[in-house]
Amino acid sequence: MTHKIKDIAAALGAAAFGDTDLTIARVAEPAQAGADDLALATNQAYADALAEGNARAALLWPGADWQALGLAAAIIPDRPRYAMSGLTAMMDAGQGFEEGIHPTAVVADDAKIGAGVSIGPMAVVMPGAKIGAGSVIGPQSFIGTQAELGDFCFLREQVSIGARVRIGDRFIAQPGTRIGGDGFSFVTPEPSGVEAARASLGEAGTETAQPWARIHSLGAVQIGDDVEIGANSTVDCGTIRDTQIGSGTKLDNLVQIGHNVIIGRDCLICAQAGVAGSTRIGNNVVLGGKTGVSDNIFIGDRVITGGGTIVLSNLPEGRVVLGYPAVKMEQQIEMNKAARRLPRLFRDVAALKSAVFKSDASD
Amino acid sequence: MTHKIKDIAAALGAAAFGDTDLTIARVAEPAQAGADDLALATNQAYADALAEGNARAALLWPGADWQALGLAAAIIPDRPRYAMSGLTAMMDAGQGFEEGIHPTAVVADDAKIGAGVSIGPMAVVMPGAKIGAGSVIGPQSFIGTQAELGDFCFLREQVSIGARVRIGDRFIAQPGTRIGGDGFSFVTPEPSGVEAARASLGEAGTETAQPWARIHSLGAVQIGDDVEIGANSTVDCGTIRDTQIGSGTKLDNLVQIGHNVIIGRDCLICAQAGVAGSTRIGNNVVLGGKTGVSDNIFIGDRVITGGGTIVLSNLPEGRVVLGYPAVKMEQQIEMNKAARRLPRLFRDVAALKSAVFKSDASD
Amino acid sequence: MTHKIKDIAAALGAAAFGDTDLTIARVAEPAQAGADDLALATNQAYADALAEGNARAALLWPGADWQALGLAAAIIPDRPRYAMSGLTAMMDAGQGFEEGIHPTAVVADDAKIGAGVSIGPMAVVMPGAKIGAGSVIGPQSFIGTQAELGDFCFLREQVSIGARVRIGDRFIAQPGTRIGGDGFSFVTPEPSGVEAARASLGEAGTETAQPWARIHSLGAVQIGDDVEIGANSTVDCGTIRDTQIGSGTKLDNLVQIGHNVIIGRDCLICAQAGVAGSTRIGNNVVLGGKTGVSDNIFIGDRVITGGGTIVLSNLPEGRVVLGYPAVKMEQQIEMNKAARRLPRLFRDVAALKSAVFKSDASD
Repeated sequence: MTHKIKDIAAALGAAAFGDTDLTIARVAEPAQAGADDLALATNQAYADALAEGNARAALLWPGADWQALGLAAAIIPDRPRYAMSGLTAMMDAGQGFEEGIHPTAVVADDAKIGAGVSIGPMAVVMPGAKIGAGSVIGPQSFIGTQAELGDFCFLREQVSIGARVRIGDRFIAQPGTRIGGDGFSFVTPEPSGVEAARASLGEAGTETAQPWARIHSLGAVQIGDDVEIGANSTVDCGTIRDTQIGSGTKLDNLVQIGHNVIIGRDCLICAQAGVAGSTRIGNNVVLGGKTGVSDNIFIGDRVITGGGTIVLSNLPEGRVVLGYPAVKMEQQIEMNKAARRLPRLFRDVAALKSAVFKSDASD
Repeated sequence: MTHKIKDIAAALGAAAFGDTDLTIARVAEPAQAGADDLALATNQAYADALAEGNARAALLWPGADWQALGLAAAIIPDRPRYAMSGLTAMMDAGQGFEEGIHPTAVVADDAKIGAGVSIGPMAVVMPGAKIGAGSVIGPQSFIGTQAELGDFCFLREQVSIGARVRIGDRFIAQPGTRIGGDGFSFVTPEPSGVEAARASLGEAGTETAQPWARIHSLGAVQIGDDVEIGANSTVDCGTIRDTQIGSGTKLDNLVQIGHNVIIGRDCLICAQAGVAGSTRIGNNVVLGGKTGVSDNIFIGDRVITGGGTIVLSNLPEGRVVLGYPAVKMEQQIEMNKAARRLPRLFRDVAALKSAVFKSDASD
Repeated sequence: MTHKIKDIAAALGAAAFGDTDLTIARVAEPAQAGADDLALATNQAYADALAEGNARAALLWPGADWQALGLAAAIIPDRPRYAMSGLTAMMDAGQGFEEGIHPTAVVADDAKIGAGVSIGPMAVVMPGAKIGAGSVIGPQSFIGTQAELGDFCFLREQVSIGARVRIGDRFIAQPGTRIGGDGFSFVTPEPSGVEAARASLGEAGTETAQPWARIHSLGAVQIGDDVEIGANSTVDCGTIRDTQIGSGTKLDNLVQIGHNVIIGRDCLICAQAGVAGSTRIGNNVVLGGKTGVSDNIFIGDRVITGGGTIVLSNLPEGRVVLGYPAVKMEQQIEMNKAARRLPRLFRDVAALKSAVFKSDASD
């Protein structure tokens, strides 16, 4: 998996300089780079660290003086961060999953397996499932009854896809992804304490305990093209219709997507974020790590939430929010500053009360 | 799996109207409903959408005029939301797991397998385990040494149940549920920084670093009847006695239950909630999504927490709370309003100081 | 697995009293203890409960009067909590995993398997993997291509270790642990809304939607000795170099460690905590449950965070913090008190405005 500088540059649409026939075996950080490595030095601070390593070639930023850095060769893309995508795709050593269907895999007779599909050891493919051409089902993974996967999907080890889930092309699932668990939906014979508390904003209501009856999920999950879902993340089935994730959307690890949720295109949902049942999320939304979104609300296109944000009500498109509950980010930053000065404010007001009302403002 | 309107109504204890011999193949939302579907139109807004679809039959709310909606047949239960439970149970197509013990499953010779048990491909049942009659062990699931499951349990794929865990009847586990990991319990040879910080509320104490020694979990987990646990949720073993989850309690996805925790009956623990070690939770408690509950505290019966609540101290029965740290929900809503008006309050106080003290109240 | 009182005491370096030849079969809480159990009564409150049970022997605290408690024998260590480590290790009945390589396991021909290794049913060991002497690979677990595990590691069921991950000795992984998923790293062709929002602290910027291009993880994960990782926790690969977890560090359940993160020695990361990409964490750090740590920041040695803390900026060594965003714990406690008194403060200020400005302070 070695590449010449000129071939890497061509693949990235970047300019190449110096000895472009130099062969690269790996990518490395500047200080750790050896003679066969391409060092990543995409700003001056990283470039300073080149002296600590032995790189002869580096990927640099527009305008960098590669010769002054003592390099034999350089690649300079217009947008180095974007070039990382193509570069890392070229240099990825992969997981070493083998081609073909492993003899220990259990594949139903009537499953439709496309050309060039790889199914790993101990994997299970249930009746009626379809797997598109070129897809890889990792070791010990599970494809449920009548589930459908498009072409060129890549599932790591121990992924599970439930019955009737439909997924588009080029889907990527990290280890332990769970698609198609049942939604969390329970109901009491009579209105419950939760319903009472929602109605009154505070009173738990009835003292009569009631058992919870299960509402089964009759819907499944529908996922577009080019979606990636992280390790141990969970996406639940819908109650009547399918839960939906739009094309191009990426989920990080340990993310929860509840039943009936609809997520648009090209969203990023960062680690440990959760979206509760029946909420709709627009396109190009970014939910920061640990963001929680309440059930049955609407999040507009291009909304961005900071880490730890808890969204309890609708957000209009383009809104950038932070906090619990979510408010505009700059407002939250003001509120946080004010909160830190609160004890002083209390002292100020006590002094004012004392001065104005001529009485000791004990509190 | 088709049903006549009259049979569905009878099963739900609901009234049936019109052509009750009409046959239903699926349940659908009004706008998507076809001629063989039962549309769910449990309020006027949903009923308005019937015109967009082709439903001939619908489940409606008490008092609805089914004929005015142009339907050929209708089912009207007293409490439509509760009727969803029975209806979805009837119409659930299931996961398609086969009957019997799959030849690839590894089942210990001395495991006690009840009548009618299904064990899926690649599942493992360890020595001394007991599985009650009619239970289903999903593909690639694991039942540990001497673990016991009651009757009519249903485990999805890739569930794991550790050694000596005891579970009652009708347990449901979604994919990737982990019961019986070891508790997270470590101790330093001398009192640690955490112990010092807890004692002083703020000073990390000793600068001498110490390694952590492991406290093994000798207890297991004990789970009552009719419990459901969500995808990739984790329930840890107790240190000396068992961690306990009471009958009728339901856990959503990615929930964490720490060692020694005792949870009562008929609780709902929503997604990504966590309960730290040795905390006790009463009956009919509802923890909203992402709720965190500190260790070694008590949560009374019928407590309800809003989404994102962090509970750091005991809560009396019936309390409805929100926030970080948790306070009464209506108080938190007041506090949130006040917090948004804080910057203005600071300006008001500055003006007052200037007026009262005749000096420039720079801050 | 029975032990004499004198042997337990010797193993713990504790003093033994009374009939030290008494044989112990289990450890129990005082009220539940039977005649063959060692009761744990490490303070007076627990000792009072001895009368409810039938213990003849107990582990007590320094200075306890074992004879006055009516015991036949007692063990008194200097630090009872620390003694729990050795005691529970002795009494742990384990998971009952068998020795040797199970015939259903798929082990690559060129994998290097040390002496005395146990590999459970349905486990998969990929080409080029190394497993050190005495290690246990649990049922249905997965060891990736060229992954390396040291000696005496213990992996529970359904653990997965990705390609090229390197782990030291005595590693413990609870069920469903995921090491070596790909990092969550995506880039747009042009600067994205997130980049704009970070730069401006609030404006989402461009209205032009862009797709996300994937940055592959070329690095792996490197884990020191004596590390433990909890159930369903996830540790991602680094982008160029390895994500690192130092020796002696312990992670609880459902923890997320992002790509490129470096964690030092002897840290405790409690359940549902998350550390975002490229953050560095020192030694002896304790992150409380549900703590979130932002990306690209530094957390000093011996930092302690309370439950639910969201850390958005660097923390110096020894700092004890709480809250969202994190501030010093004692300051947060003051701020919380002040926040609860805010509605009253608003009324006070309104009264002051009315008195000082002779106008009705409507708000």
